[in-house]
Amino acid sequence: MYIGRVIGTVVATRKDEKLVGSKLLITQPLNIELKPIGEPLIGVDTVGAGIGELVIYVKGTASRIAARKMDSPIDISIVGIIDSMDVHKETLGGN
Amino acid sequence: MYIGRVIGTVVATRKDEKLVGSKLLITQPLNIELKPIGEPLIGVDTVGAGIGELVIYVKGTASRIAARKMDSPIDISIVGIIDSMDVHKETLGGN
Amino acid sequence: MYIGRVIGTVVATRKDEKLVGSKLLITQPLNIELKPIGEPLIGVDTVGAGIGELVIYVKGTASRIAARKMDSPIDISIVGIIDSMDVHKETLGGN
Amino acid sequence: MYIGRVIGTVVATRKDEKLVGSKLLITQPLNIELKPIGEPLIGVDTVGAGIGELVIYVKGTASRIAARKMDSPIDISIVGIIDSMDVHKETLGGN
Amino acid sequence: MYIGRVIGTVVATRKDEKLVGSKLLITQPLNIELKPIGEPLIGVDTVGAGIGELVIYVKGTASRIAARKMDSPIDISIVGIIDSMDVHKETLGGN
Repeated sequence: MYIGRVIGTVVATRKDEKLVGSKLLITQPLNIELKPIGEPLIGVDTVGAGIGELVIYVKGTASRIAARKMDSPIDISIVGIIDSMDVHKETLGGN
Repeated sequence: MYIGRVIGTVVATRKDEKLVGSKLLITQPLNIELKPIGEPLIGVDTVGAGIGELVIYVKGTASRIAARKMDSPIDISIVGIIDSMDVHKETLGGN
Repeated sequence: MYIGRVIGTVVATRKDEKLVGSKLLITQPLNIELKPIGEPLIGVDTVGAGIGELVIYVKGTASRIAARKMDSPIDISIVGIIDSMDVHKETLGGN
Repeated sequence: MYIGRVIGTVVATRKDEKLVGSKLLITQPLNIELKPIGEPLIGVDTVGAGIGELVIYVKGTASRIAARKMDSPIDISIVGIIDSMDVHKETLGGN
Repeated sequence: MYIGRVIGTVVATRKDEKLVGSKLLITQPLNIELKPIGEPLIGVDTVGAGIGELVIYVKGTASRIAARKMDSPIDISIVGIIDSMDVHKETLGGN
């Protein structure tokens, strides 16, 4: 699972009919300092995420499991909204 | 799902027979500013996308679901044409 | 399988109900010198890993196999705690 | 699907017995200018590709579908030989 | 499939019980000049590979196929030992 922030929505009138009814959220992958890294993704919302929220997203088959739509062409889904993270970066200096 | 732009077509006479009849579109991955990032991909068109259009594409099993061809050697498909995106980049400054 | 270090925990009250009961650990991918590389991941703990521990994690279907939860939206799991590594970097100079 | 060029062959006497009979071709991923990008891959040939040819390759399950060997440890296959590409890079300046 | 070199071993006493009996080898991805690229991986040995050997490895489902352990949390396996490679880099200058 990956850390991201919902930064927008996308409208696509012409799309696979199995995607109708799925909310598509533009999600920016973040690093541990919550800074953007890499390309934005489009995730299917499965938890009622809103713009600006810090979320957990998954890729691949896990995303169809999350959406309860195994026969939809989904490869990324948002599965949780992050309340807080407890990070101990000092452990990265160890062996 | 990923954001891309259809920038061309590819002709391959010698190919897996299960790909016959699938339109292969060269798709450039884009970042949120719609600038090219990374390598071009070849996606199977499932929504009637044309050159220059901004699209949503998927990878892996989702691409075969989109093509309704589970037994074809497809790993990327175009599943939607983007009408508009509403992006709130200011949210990236938050915690 | 990949080398990482557990550097924290994440709390997500609103999440896929199938994730309830899974311990979510923030895991930093490491290179062979045990220095951080790339973005942090969130892995499901399946071996009782603690903060600061050096671990082995897997991605994709393997992560659901590890969690014994094939119908959960999991795509990364921690599957082992590294006791020691015996690295022969001198072999990288060969042909 | 991805664009690559076949640049060599690999001989591996000791290998998974399910790979016996599969032609293994070293394939260099290319960008749209047909310049090398990233690491070389080893793909299973399914279309009679030769050294120097521009090819389409796939990853993952699609590669086993292409090889008609679902129980072989294959994760990349060559599925087509590119005759020509029609690229409209000017479309990348649009919105 | 990917080119790598076995550079070490990893010991993990606490691990998924389905991994017991699998030899875990630290494998360095290599480019075509056999120089290290990217992060080290941990692959399950399925061909009797030793330290310093040049190998072919696979990812994902293919790795469980190679290990003949479809219900083990494996996502990378070594499937062949490279005897020789015949590389024609001059073909990369063509169109």
